[in-house]
Order: sequence, then C-alpha cells, then structure tokens
Amino acid sequence: MIYLDNNATTFLTPAVRDCIGSLIAAPLGNPSSPHRLGGEARTLIEKARDQVAAALGARSECVLFVGSGSEANAMAVAAAQTHRDRDEIIISAVEHSSVGANAALLCRRGFTVREVPVEASGRIDLDRLAAVVSECTALVSVQSVNNETGVIQPVEEVAAISHRAGALYHCDAAQALGKIPIAVEGRHAPDLLSVTAHKINGPTGCGALYARDPALLQPLVGGGDQEQGLRGGTENLIGVVGFGAAAAERMRYMIAVSDLLTTCRDTFEQAVRAAEPQVAVNGDRRHRVGNTSNLRFPDIDGTMLIAALDDRELYCSQSSACTTARPTPSHVLTAMGLSEAEAYASLRFSFGALNTVEEAERAAQCVINAYRDLLDRLHRFGAA
Amino acid sequence: MIYLDNNATTFLTPAVRDCIGSLIAAPLGNPSSPHRLGGEARTLIEKARDQVAAALGARSECVLFVGSGSEANAMAVAAAQTHRDRDEIIISAVEHSSVGANAALLCRRGFTVREVPVEASGRIDLDRLAAVVSECTALVSVQSVNNETGVIQPVEEVAAISHRAGALYHCDAAQALGKIPIAVEGRHAPDLLSVTAHKINGPTGCGALYARDPALLQPLVGGGDQEQGLRGGTENLIGVVGFGAAAAERMRYMIAVSDLLTTCRDTFEQAVRAAEPQVAVNGDRRHRVGNTSNLRFPDIDGTMLIAALDDRELYCSQSSACTTARPTPSHVLTAMGLSEAEAYASLRFSFGALNTVEEAERAAQCVINAYRDLLDRLHRFGAA
Repeated sequence: MIYLDNNATTFLTPAVRDCIGSLIAAPLGNPSSPHRLGGEARTLIEKARDQVAAALGARSECVLFVGSGSEANAMAVAAAQTHRDRDEIIISAVEHSSVGANAALLCRRGFTVREVPVEASGRIDLDRLAAVVSECTALVSVQSVNNETGVIQPVEEVAAISHRAGALYHCDAAQALGKIPIAVEGRHAPDLLSVTAHKINGPTGCGALYARDPALLQPLVGGGDQEQGLRGGTENLIGVVGFGAAAAERMRYMIAVSDLLTTCRDTFEQAVRAAEPQVAVNGDRRHRVGNTSNLRFPDIDGTMLIAALDDRELYCSQSSACTTARPTPSHVLTAMGLSEAEAYASLRFSFGALNTVEEAERAAQCVINAYRDLLDRLHRFGAA
Repeated sequence: MIYLDNNATTFLTPAVRDCIGSLIAAPLGNPSSPHRLGGEARTLIEKARDQVAAALGARSECVLFVGSGSEANAMAVAAAQTHRDRDEIIISAVEHSSVGANAALLCRRGFTVREVPVEASGRIDLDRLAAVVSECTALVSVQSVNNETGVIQPVEEVAAISHRAGALYHCDAAQALGKIPIAVEGRHAPDLLSVTAHKINGPTGCGALYARDPALLQPLVGGGDQEQGLRGGTENLIGVVGFGAAAAERMRYMIAVSDLLTTCRDTFEQAVRAAEPQVAVNGDRRHRVGNTSNLRFPDIDGTMLIAALDDRELYCSQSSACTTARPTPSHVLTAMGLSEAEAYASLRFSFGALNTVEEAERAAQCVINAYRDLLDRLHRFGAA
C-alpha cells in the first residue's frame, strides 16, 4: 500500500500515537472540574495550546481549539459580523468548500459574498482583489496553500490590501501548517487563521483558530466557559493533546520533513513526466508547497485512473475529500481555466511525513503503468 | 483516589480504551475519501452510528455526530428557526448552561426565551408549562435527567404538551443515556435529543444529536457533505468510534451497571445520612437516576468541604463542571427554592460504571470525617 492522499488526511506518527496511548491509559478528568483531575486535564490542554501557538508564532491566548478546520473557518468568517457597517465578504475562487459554505451561511444575515478569480497559475489575481476590496468589505478570506494544487498564495499582499481598506483578513492555513512557515505576528499578518491537526499527523476532529483579538469572535456553540466562553462543550482531550504533540513534533523536524516531502514529490513527479512527457502539472510550480503534485493526464478520465491505482493499492484523490461525493469537477481547477474534461483528467498526489523516497519511486512506476494500460485499452476500444 | 464526579466526565472503560488503542494502531483514511482507506473509515463511523442509534432506539439516519453535548444542544435549539411564524423558545429553569446559552444566541434572531420554573423537587411545573406553551412556541427544551441532582423530568408529558401546541420538543439526555432507557420512537417522544460520549465512559469531544427529521436542522458549521451536509469538517474518528464502543458496552451491561450505580449511591447516601441525619438530599428521591447524590450539609460552606475532600483524594463537585468557573451559586438548586447559602452548602456525588461499593463505603466515611472536622473547626473558631 502506498498512501499519497495526505492532503485529505495523514496517519498518526508513532510519537502522536504514543502520546494518545499514554493519555488514555490514565484516568482523565473534565478540564473544567476544580479538583486535581480537572486541573491535570486543564494543564494538558494549555500545554497543547502552547504547542500549537508556537507552531503559528502566536501568543497562546489567541489560539482556540475547535472541532475541525471547517469549524475554525466558520468562526473566522463569522467574524465579519464585528463590522456593523460593512456587509461584504470576499473570498478567492479556490478556497476550501468550508470557506465558501460558511460565507454563504452569512448571506442569511445580510452579507454578500464575492469571489475573486485566480490566474492560470492558481494564484489570486491581486489587481482584481485590490479593485474589489472596498469600504464595504468586512472580511477577506484567502487561503495560504491550496489543498488541491499546493499553490501558495501571496498572503502578505492579501493582508496588506485587506487592511488598507479596513477589512479583516482571514487565512485558511490548514494545508500550510508544517509545510511552510506561518507567522501571525508582523506587519502584514492575518487577523484570523485556521489550522487542523489531521493534516500534520495529528488526529481528525480537532482544529484551531488563531484570532489576533478573540473579541472579534462570536460563539457558534454557546455553553460553559470553555475556550474563553467562545466554544461551549467539554474539550476534546484526545484531539487537543494529539494536536499539540503533532505540532511540536512537526516544528522540531520541520526542515527534515520539508526536505523529505519535496524530495518525494519531485522524485515522483519527475519520474512520471520523464516517462510520459505529455503529463502536465496543474498550478504554479514556483509557488507551491513541497508535498503536492496535481497532474493532468491527457486523454483519460481521471476517475478510471484513480480506480486503476486503487486496485494497485496506491491511494490518491481527484479533488478535496470534503467534496468527493459531489458529481462536479474540481472548482479549483476550473477556476484556473481548465476545462471540465481537463479537471476530470487530473489527479492529486500528496505526500506526508511518513512517506519514503522509495515509495515515491514505486508510486511513479505504478502511475506510469496504470496510465499506459488505460491509454492502451482506450486505444484498443477505439480501434475495435 | 475515589472519583465521584462522573456527571462531569467518566473514565474510559478498558473496552473503550482498547477500542481506541486498536483504532489508532492502524492507518486511518479520511472518511470522505473514495479509496479503500476512506471506505474503511466510513464503515467505522457508520458502525458507531448504528451503536449510538441502538442506544437511543433510533434509526441511524436520524443520528448525527457532533463535537459535544453542548453542540448537540446548540443545533437542536436552533431548530426553532424551522417555524417561520413562531418566535418563542421555552426551557426549564434547571437546564444545562448550554441550553440556556444557545437559546440566548437565538435572541439576536428575534426569538424570546422563557423559563418555566421547577417545583421544590426539581421537577418541572407541568401546569406552568402547559400555561406558557402557545401557538407562539417554536420549541420546548426540557432535559431528561438533571446533571446536578439526577432528578428525572416527565419527558412524555412535556412532549405531549409541546406537541399539542405544535411546538418541537428537544430533550437534553446527556445525563440520561446509559442510566435510564431512552426511546425516541413512540407517541410522546422528543423531536430532538442530545447525548454525549463522555458521560458513559466514552471520550470527551464527541456528542450526538438525534433528529426525528434531520431536515429540521441547519448547519452551524458549513463545508463538505459530512453528516448529511449538516456538519462540515472531517469527522472525529477516535471520538466517534469511542462513542460507539461506549454505547454498545453500556447497552450490553445496562442492567448490571444501573444496579451497581444505584447500590453505590444508596450505600453512600445512607451511610452519610445515618451518621449525620441533618444532611439532606436535594431533589426528588423517587424520580432520580441511580448514580447521583446531591447532598446539603447544614452550617458549612460547601467549597470548604470540597477542598477537604480534595485533600483526601475524594473528587466530587459543587455544580456543573461547565459553570464551576462562575462565582454564582448553582442555578439548579436556587431554582428549586434553596437559598444561596443552602446551594453553596450542597455537593454533588456522582457514581460511574467503574466505581465499586467498597469505594462508596470508603467515600461515605471520608465525607463524614471531613464534615465533622469542618464543623469541629467552625465550632472551635466560633468558641474562641
């Protein structure tokens, strides 16, 4: 089995697994309980918060734990409501489905959502953004790294444009964390930023939201005083502690992991394209994180290639896992100008910290063989 | 150490711990991914859903996994919005903080929240409820079992009153699950019902919401197609699978666990009251789940007794863990007519499936000694 779907989710590293294993071996109190067991649980959460905050270059009191990257995005986008006199949310055309969906939920409260197009490279059109952002804009949401192509957005420029107009800037950094440096302090930094544990070998079900000023936020879930009163409900101890452990591990080995990811991806991509030069890379190759390869295979239906790779136990994907159930082509690739057929002919291979270069080589061979088989079959059927 | 704070949270049973241990030992895919690993993760979630649904007597398609009991309450209360022509939410005066807080969030959208008082027993005043529910009432939210006193509410009567007026009935059953039977099918059943894993020896961070008709619900978190499109975000696999395992285990041993809980609680309560007859039980003793003992210790400040028990490593609490940080007396006890001093003089002891009768006996002795020490000290200070 070769798993190249790490942008959908990653496997727990042995260290994170051990951390969760130790955690559940001991009796755990409710972090809100005043007795010793509660205090111990609270300490675990605050340690994890420090670990995640460190990974973001943030102060711990600006980091809230939530249930997913999508929930972080939901709370972040809802911060648009702090601007009482502005009613516009601007997002890029290649955001994760949760940014668009949560912005759309705000339309019921009088907001208008505008989408800014991207260039063929997948990068946001900054001129168009600057032209669209105005004194009506409450919030701009542009991701740091695209989940399908790995393309890196010019977040500092986006922050500068947003702030110049007095708008909040939210950055979905779910795919950036652990791959490129994140710094939320600084001149042109996001006001809000979303990350999630399971993209860096932590467990699913735990995200985090950075807010420069938590007073920008409103609770989606009311209740107790957890998370500064901004998210009621007993904390997900396993998720939070696992996230902290994963963040700390990734920060410790960031350079080594980045190198490994890039080596794996480049090895894979170069081997495939050396064998099949007509295979194209979707997205800007200069501004791209090291782990993602979105490849377009001319003349085939990608779903057939996915199925063939599945049979060979090579797991990759066609777009975001969150939207695979939808019978539409990738909105990211079509926003970049690809035709529907080209989008369907594209596959995402995403490497993770637990992959090896040897796997990357085997994966390339596997993809080449499967692609050739498919072309062969299509050719024979066509000839028949 | 004796842990009698199981209404705040329970410890994982060995079976649940083993289940989570096995789960994290294997590579886990994203449940939304179409490949084999994704399919396996999906299967795990659907198995857990069946297990939780079975514990509620519900069809699986009516059960959504969420991040906590509070989130289940938030989504449930928000279902009031399905009634376009009704603008009133009615809750009891003894609901969990999350019901009140989430109902209050809806005030911004034009809803009015009315509280129905309870009797001295802690049970809702049904006549008052019937008088208050009207054609303006969109939703009634009355819990099944109180988290502080263990008092059982007449949910069928509440359902009947609500439905007669055409209102939805939501039942927070977080403290009922695994202690008394829950049946969501039937003539006078709730339309919406909340439960959470960590009250039945599952992990924190995973709740479930039953909805007779999921179309009553709106997403708090938009995004992908997870949970019927009603809760975006990659599923909390550890939490969900742990919840399923805990629910299945509790259902299998429901009678044995209920017997154990009641024996422990009664042993404890009788021993304390035999030694100190002035100690009173808060709440209706006939309509009460078997695990909870809310005791009022005359003449002392409960926080001092809690501290003394803490020193002896007996862990209990004074009210809901979710609101311990608040410097106010229990709203549940004051709603039952207790004075502030009486509320502060009250402690909650809540037993769990992992307690033993021997612990209950030791706990009683510990409480008697600590109480007598306190009275003694107060007496000496008073005399000095």
